[in-house]
Amino acid sequence: MRKIYMDCASTTPVDKDVVKEMLPFSTEKYGNPSSLHSFGREAHDAMEKARENIAKLINADKDEIVFTSGGTESDNLAIKGIAYKMKEEITDYKGPHIITSSIEHPAVMETCKYLGLQGFKVKYLPVDKYGVVNLDNLKKSISRGTFLITVMHANNEIGTIQNIEEIGKIAKEHNIVFHSDAVQSVGKIPVDVKKTKIDLLSISSHKIYGPKGVGALYIRKGVKLEPMIHGGGHEKGIRSGTENIPNIVGFGKACELAKKRLNEDAEHLTILRDKLIKNVLNIEESYLNGHPTLRLPNNAHLRFTAVEGESLILSLDEKGIAASTGSACSSKKLLPSHVLLAIGLNEIEAHGSLRITLGRGNTENEVKYVIDVLPGIIRNLREMSPLWKKPLEIEKWKKEMKK
Amino acid sequence: MRKIYMDCASTTPVDKDVVKEMLPFSTEKYGNPSSLHSFGREAHDAMEKARENIAKLINADKDEIVFTSGGTESDNLAIKGIAYKMKEEITDYKGPHIITSSIEHPAVMETCKYLGLQGFKVKYLPVDKYGVVNLDNLKKSISRGTFLITVMHANNEIGTIQNIEEIGKIAKEHNIVFHSDAVQSVGKIPVDVKKTKIDLLSISSHKIYGPKGVGALYIRKGVKLEPMIHGGGHEKGIRSGTENIPNIVGFGKACELAKKRLNEDAEHLTILRDKLIKNVLNIEESYLNGHPTLRLPNNAHLRFTAVEGESLILSLDEKGIAASTGSACSSKKLLPSHVLLAIGLNEIEAHGSLRITLGRGNTENEVKYVIDVLPGIIRNLREMSPLWKKPLEIEKWKKEMKK
Repeated sequence: MRKIYMDCASTTPVDKDVVKEMLPFSTEKYGNPSSLHSFGREAHDAMEKARENIAKLINADKDEIVFTSGGTESDNLAIKGIAYKMKEEITDYKGPHIITSSIEHPAVMETCKYLGLQGFKVKYLPVDKYGVVNLDNLKKSISRGTFLITVMHANNEIGTIQNIEEIGKIAKEHNIVFHSDAVQSVGKIPVDVKKTKIDLLSISSHKIYGPKGVGALYIRKGVKLEPMIHGGGHEKGIRSGTENIPNIVGFGKACELAKKRLNEDAEHLTILRDKLIKNVLNIEESYLNGHPTLRLPNNAHLRFTAVEGESLILSLDEKGIAASTGSACSSKKLLPSHVLLAIGLNEIEAHGSLRITLGRGNTENEVKYVIDVLPGIIRNLREMSPLWKKPLEIEKWKKEMKK
Repeated sequence: MRKIYMDCASTTPVDKDVVKEMLPFSTEKYGNPSSLHSFGREAHDAMEKARENIAKLINADKDEIVFTSGGTESDNLAIKGIAYKMKEEITDYKGPHIITSSIEHPAVMETCKYLGLQGFKVKYLPVDKYGVVNLDNLKKSISRGTFLITVMHANNEIGTIQNIEEIGKIAKEHNIVFHSDAVQSVGKIPVDVKKTKIDLLSISSHKIYGPKGVGALYIRKGVKLEPMIHGGGHEKGIRSGTENIPNIVGFGKACELAKKRLNEDAEHLTILRDKLIKNVLNIEESYLNGHPTLRLPNNAHLRFTAVEGESLILSLDEKGIAASTGSACSSKKLLPSHVLLAIGLNEIEAHGSLRITLGRGNTENEVKYVIDVLPGIIRNLREMSPLWKKPLEIEKWKKEMKK
């Protein structure tokens, strides 16, 4: 059976050139970069070259990049690292204060909740129906104790892009550290840490055709973090543990390719995305979640009345199409997505959502296949649904859920 | 030039069968195991098969294995995880108390030091001249507030193996959690968590011919840890972040091979190691560090009067031989090893050490080559040394160091 992968916000295939670059570092050039001998020096040089490529993609300096095991660790390191470093310095009687949004990735949200249990105050900014943070609201939330603003660049579910340039300016004006989870945006839309006043930026390799298990945290020169993983003092003491050289090398190559292909990829993906959205919206009672234009070039997040997301994914899977209900991170839990609730959907609506996230390798033919197949699937599912065209049933369900 | 790698305590080449097993999970089977579609299910199944193989190697149950980014993270998660979980429960007026040894890997030592800054009391047990922890001393150190004993299985520098069976018994008798960093021992000597009363055991893939950037923590059923990395709730909520599937698959294969080859490898390595040690000790004023018999089958840790370790490594490197002065983790720092100081060496002696750690692929011929080459290198270095056969100079240096 034909297999079409359209779940690139979950993870991407590793680019062939990336695999090729990585391989020798497992089999021949397998040294530990901390070692003094030639194997070690070779590994060390390759790591520094990769660091350079990652820095270039976001216009950072090489020594502002710290390698981690992925986006989740980067988010944890950034937020806890600043929080534990600055805790003692906050003299506001209300306690140390973090501002974040209500639609962050769980890596940010759960970290903030955890800090919330430890005496930190956390403000979760609401978003509008498109998932955009209101900047006036942000400004009003700043208090004397606010030491960190952490707002994602692009949302992993609905693809909405925040105005991080403005958020950066506001943070600077108030002398507040600004962290952004840019796991979904880096490599897809331009990110420039020099132009934008970002202090900490989380990046992941496996979302941009690099290997899994490696990520980076950009740390602006002068910003001090408390380490989260202690040990041999790797990465200038900020992140201990033998560096994952093959994957770091692959990550570097993936960034090099992403930089080279940024415009070309974005153009290709935007055309496919728009074709997909336009055609799918011809289906009766179908809606686009997220912002119509301020959205990632590869994200189509759709909603169908009286269709249950999990069944939709499984039906698509039977046709060889891999897509997602929400973010992969929570797709095995049956809780409704906090992002979809935050943009104002009710629980039933949230459960009827489909996330299609395209990749570099997807073709127009594949998109056409999805457009052809989807209406039939929706029709079938609706025929089995107790909610389709039964407004009274829906009202009953809503009441049930409120209990 | 001939290249001989004898630094396997730092890292190992990835076994060819391991690479073969991993590769498809980057290029074809690249799904995120949290995804509901076929790519996701395929990745999930592969991950669970790997988990099974890792469990088997240490005689654990599959659901007692949590994947991490490596040994350092495993150590951090184990120690901080228990410490933060149990802090509130300790009612002893002296505060919560951890017992560890004075020769732990930095991943354990630095984590304990960090907790020491947060109100935890830490006892660093001394070791004898072979690096063995005295068990009477351990027993005497236990107080009402002791909630964790963390003692490594085999030392990463001198290769000394601790009696973890006895330590486990002592811990159980006092109802104390026992963690062991077994990064150097698993896959080289038998480890059985059912027979030995271990609650938490750290393992790393890249020390046993698996890929870098992946490790595991064995967590005995019923032992509760506070997570260190928060997010999407992967690994039953204990370790969030998209799982590094290709490396996990490789790690699983490496464990399968290690189990199969355990006796064969140990026998081969012991023969090579003993031949190496016996011949090298023919060099004038050369000594073996660590225990004569309670040592890892692949570890030869030697010391030469009036020879400077870094120069020795670089001279060996010129002859194509990769070895280490201490552990790779600290080999770029010029501080004397805390392990060598703990076994009673002075700073000059500690700086004159050489760690040769053999691997599965090393041959008798390679060992012969090292034996042939080493005496000449030592002779050359001693000819340049201001300390060789100059006891007065040595006394002067010692006094300098004490200042």
